[in-house]
Amino acid sequence: MSECAAERGRMAGLLLLCAASALLLAAVGAIPPPEEAARMARFVLHSCDWGALATLSAQEGLRGRPFANIFSISDGPPGPFGGSGVPYLYLTDMEISVQDLEVNSNASLTVSLAQTPYCRRHRYDPQNPLCAHIIFVGSIVKVNDSEAVLAKKALFSRHPEMESWPKDHDWFFAKFNITNIWVLDYFGGLKIVTPEEYYSVKPYGLLDAVSEVIRWEKIRVMLMWK
Amino acid sequence: MSECAAERGRMAGLLLLCAASALLLAAVGAIPPPEEAARMARFVLHSCDWGALATLSAQEGLRGRPFANIFSISDGPPGPFGGSGVPYLYLTDMEISVQDLEVNSNASLTVSLAQTPYCRRHRYDPQNPLCAHIIFVGSIVKVNDSEAVLAKKALFSRHPEMESWPKDHDWFFAKFNITNIWVLDYFGGLKIVTPEEYYSVKPYGLLDAVSEVIRWEKIRVMLMWK
Repeated sequence: MSECAAERGRMAGLLLLCAASALLLAAVGAIPPPEEAARMARFVLHSCDWGALATLSAQEGLRGRPFANIFSISDGPPGPFGGSGVPYLYLTDMEISVQDLEVNSNASLTVSLAQTPYCRRHRYDPQNPLCAHIIFVGSIVKVNDSEAVLAKKALFSRHPEMESWPKDHDWFFAKFNITNIWVLDYFGGLKIVTPEEYYSVKPYGLLDAVSEVIRWEKIRVMLMWK
Repeated sequence: MSECAAERGRMAGLLLLCAASALLLAAVGAIPPPEEAARMARFVLHSCDWGALATLSAQEGLRGRPFANIFSISDGPPGPFGGSGVPYLYLTDMEISVQDLEVNSNASLTVSLAQTPYCRRHRYDPQNPLCAHIIFVGSIVKVNDSEAVLAKKALFSRHPEMESWPKDHDWFFAKFNITNIWVLDYFGGLKIVTPEEYYSVKPYGLLDAVSEVIRWEKIRVMLMWK
């Protein structure tokens, strides 16, 4: 192969590598299309560091009434390569909502892209379906010791100050055990996603991006040998 | 009065005006101190364009269970001079939560400074009390025609796209009728604020800042005549 052809091959390869990296980054960071509701649910949950939790109040005078509160959450370290989809929480029974849960562990968790720059950047109102949000219904359960290791990694990687919270609050790791999921990310009403569908997908189109990279690498090699 | 004294007076006046303006701006934008829980509740509510609403589910298979959802809210046009403290909402009975409310209008609304740049800027975790959040318990009620004028101004000033939402959704103006308020803005647990306290305060220290400006203006005049 002549020097010119080799040089041309190297330049083409470099250009393709840049383009593929850009494609990869765009794919792993991109919001899923609305027809992929399960992936959207995983994407939004993974994008959020906190959520609003609804419980049934156990407080005197308010028994059985809905009660909304704010909790930090995490399904895994931030970034496009983490995230199990399981919303972990770090709780103490000094919290009113946790006292509610001790009487009735049923709860609902909601997370929204309004919590991220996405909606503001696209000028979507928080109540606009395009500012996607997810509603989970289920219950809060304490995790066992082996799952506590995962929960700790998920939570402390996003919420490092948790490690210094007062030890006498008897913090424990918990998770939201999901039974129902609704996705509002497009016009036409809420979409229902089953927990099975939710846990079987990945939030990011990484595999799609990887196969693109492989395909472009083949093109580069072809160009090199031309 | 000599020219020098007059010049000195004008310079002093200009400096005082700048300082007073800075003080005014700082006061009207500043978060209230944690010992002023009612003002904090007003401040956080006014700072938020949306909130999480908990209702009792009326859905088949989930009756009576808590259900959390996201709604745009407004207590008045944004900025330090607006805000009645009343959370107005723009609703349609096509929304699942609104169908819940038709069966049981009891609800809980929560808003957090985690929805604003404040907590990120101060590196407060969303579950850190210093990342203040407010919990309201009460009910959702449709507003009457005269209050709808206020609700419309409050909502459309912050959520201009609402005006173009589909007319066939039969949107209506509603408000959160507050019966209980909890403020978590400092260590030591939730603070209780009554609706009377909540509605009797202003979220911003404007009066304090205005009286400072007046005091400094008096000083300027004194300097001028020295």
